[in-house]
Amino acid sequence: MTGPDQLPLRPELRGRTPYGAPQLQVKHRLNTNENPHPLPPELLADLGAALGHAALELNRYPDRDALALRRDLAAYLTRTSGEPVEPAQVWAANGSNEVLQQVLQAFGGAGRTALGFTPSYSMHPIISAGTGTAWVDGHRREDFTIDAAQAAAQVREVRPDVVFVTSPNNPTGTAVALETITTIYDATSYGPGHAGVVVVDEAYTEFARTGTRSALTLLPGRPRLLVSRTMSKAFGMAGLRLGYLAADPAVVDALQLVRLPYHLSSLTQAAARTALAHTDALLATVDAVKAERDRIVAALPGMGLTSVPSDANFVLFGHFTDAPGVWKALLDHDVLVRDVGLPGWLRVTAGTTEETDAFLTALGEVVAEQHLGDSRA
Amino acid sequence: MTGPDQLPLRPELRGRTPYGAPQLQVKHRLNTNENPHPLPPELLADLGAALGHAALELNRYPDRDALALRRDLAAYLTRTSGEPVEPAQVWAANGSNEVLQQVLQAFGGAGRTALGFTPSYSMHPIISAGTGTAWVDGHRREDFTIDAAQAAAQVREVRPDVVFVTSPNNPTGTAVALETITTIYDATSYGPGHAGVVVVDEAYTEFARTGTRSALTLLPGRPRLLVSRTMSKAFGMAGLRLGYLAADPAVVDALQLVRLPYHLSSLTQAAARTALAHTDALLATVDAVKAERDRIVAALPGMGLTSVPSDANFVLFGHFTDAPGVWKALLDHDVLVRDVGLPGWLRVTAGTTEETDAFLTALGEVVAEQHLGDSRA
Repeated sequence: MTGPDQLPLRPELRGRTPYGAPQLQVKHRLNTNENPHPLPPELLADLGAALGHAALELNRYPDRDALALRRDLAAYLTRTSGEPVEPAQVWAANGSNEVLQQVLQAFGGAGRTALGFTPSYSMHPIISAGTGTAWVDGHRREDFTIDAAQAAAQVREVRPDVVFVTSPNNPTGTAVALETITTIYDATSYGPGHAGVVVVDEAYTEFARTGTRSALTLLPGRPRLLVSRTMSKAFGMAGLRLGYLAADPAVVDALQLVRLPYHLSSLTQAAARTALAHTDALLATVDAVKAERDRIVAALPGMGLTSVPSDANFVLFGHFTDAPGVWKALLDHDVLVRDVGLPGWLRVTAGTTEETDAFLTALGEVVAEQHLGDSRA
Repeated sequence: MTGPDQLPLRPELRGRTPYGAPQLQVKHRLNTNENPHPLPPELLADLGAALGHAALELNRYPDRDALALRRDLAAYLTRTSGEPVEPAQVWAANGSNEVLQQVLQAFGGAGRTALGFTPSYSMHPIISAGTGTAWVDGHRREDFTIDAAQAAAQVREVRPDVVFVTSPNNPTGTAVALETITTIYDATSYGPGHAGVVVVDEAYTEFARTGTRSALTLLPGRPRLLVSRTMSKAFGMAGLRLGYLAADPAVVDALQLVRLPYHLSSLTQAAARTALAHTDALLATVDAVKAERDRIVAALPGMGLTSVPSDANFVLFGHFTDAPGVWKALLDHDVLVRDVGLPGWLRVTAGTTEETDAFLTALGEVVAEQHLGDSRA
């Protein structure tokens, strides 16, 4: 048997393990923020037709520039944000992970630095490492919010080439105020010919509480602002792998220099366009999921627990003295949540009413079993 | 308008243009080595069922490790090469381009070097650049074959971390002798703890002339040998974007450290598995395409032209004093071939009988129009 150490692997990769939550067979999988609602029947019928049509030309390369899909995504963003977004401002790839990888290939890479405010989406530092980009942890307050002035000061000091702001933040759940984003953006002008790009990762933005505005509204006049999105969450299409981004057209031009040609399959493009034609039906599940999230949040104090304010389809809850122990106890109750490595906290995905019932029942039993005084800090 | 120069783009990307052949609306598109045969009806029917089934769970993330697909790919490689290939030896991604990008992220990257024997697949240096890997051009003979001893000497001198050997070579068409590959492989042992990996890019191998053996047969005992394949060509599924690789299981483990989680969509996995279940029907088109290729090769001398020996679904033909002029003249005849930038040569994809007829007719007319003495060197 050859071990990885006998291969000429890059030194910084040695001893690492692949990223990814356990894919366990558990009754209630509330660990990866999937949307539990299957696609509506009318969409499934249209998908069958669209994929069948795409298969007829599957021997041909796909549209390399995904023009029709980008037009549909631009229309969706325009309609839901109120901010006019042109197709030339939109780019799409196999999941927002690939979008972010392309951003780092174009604006990060060897000799350059990315900064994100941890705890945040754990793929940001991992994709940075995968592109040879140095990573710096940005600071947050104790309550996991970002102090705009402190963040701007850190950006001016570190001078990162790429800054990540996750809004709503994952795994903590809270949306970031637009004023915080503009303060950070302004701080990334370091001097003549030296500036960074700011990526606002809005993977969960459709779940935000009423009144939350998208960073899309900040795009005019900010050519170094990038807003990434995904169809995995609100659209309930995690299996499709379709992430996208809106920014200045020059940013999209830049990403085309590093994208792999024909990166988006004909099937992906056809399925995503079909789903976008059913936007209203798909987003109807968003309100249902938000109601379940709010029910989780409301139930926690009754168990002596608390949560971080959530604008997402998940809730960070605690505080426990032994979060890994609670994680395991919930698993024993057939409920899989996520231990995101934050001492005292666990993350649960908000899904169906039945899932919420199962989670709250299990959590109540676990808290009782572990005795209040032992399990909570 | 923001120009790319006003963005903090990586310096080496400034002024570049995106890679890709023109996607022109031309009657006979013989420029990207697509398989012109549409998928057989029985496969289309099964694809519809499989994709419809996958769509039912599209709200869930795909199998991150694509275990079932890798098992099917291993079975295909075992059956067609005669070399037992285990699922743990196989890795798949969105096109062989993504496979190669992952290889470079794991074994190349900043401070490391890749070497390929140019002219060869033009994405190899581009993906190297995209991952920060330095690139060195390897030498070929005048007839575009690789001199094993000279190649090994160059490898020992440059000490690349990744060596690319394209077999059959693109854009020239000729398969590489296995002895040449083993000579190059042996040269990549530079000393204690210092070695390179060798990637044999076999994208076109199913079209090779009778008697050509795959580099898969060289895998036993060579943990640093990687063989990449694609379903875009012989399987006629360029629109699917499914590339794969066979190597030591430790190599697959290494690639999982850099792959983006859930990189392969549920639809891609389902469609690829369905196609593999129809391997015999799909590969039936390979013999038809090879016959057309051989017909092109045989017709060229009659026009006073020549070609490079081809084991692929394309032919590099010439020699012209003004290849770009011939390219344009063929386009005027509604035939799109590829100017791959080799002075005097053009590349044409072998497709259907009708396409071959159209190409040969157009070429005959163009050669006559341009007057023999002017157009040929």
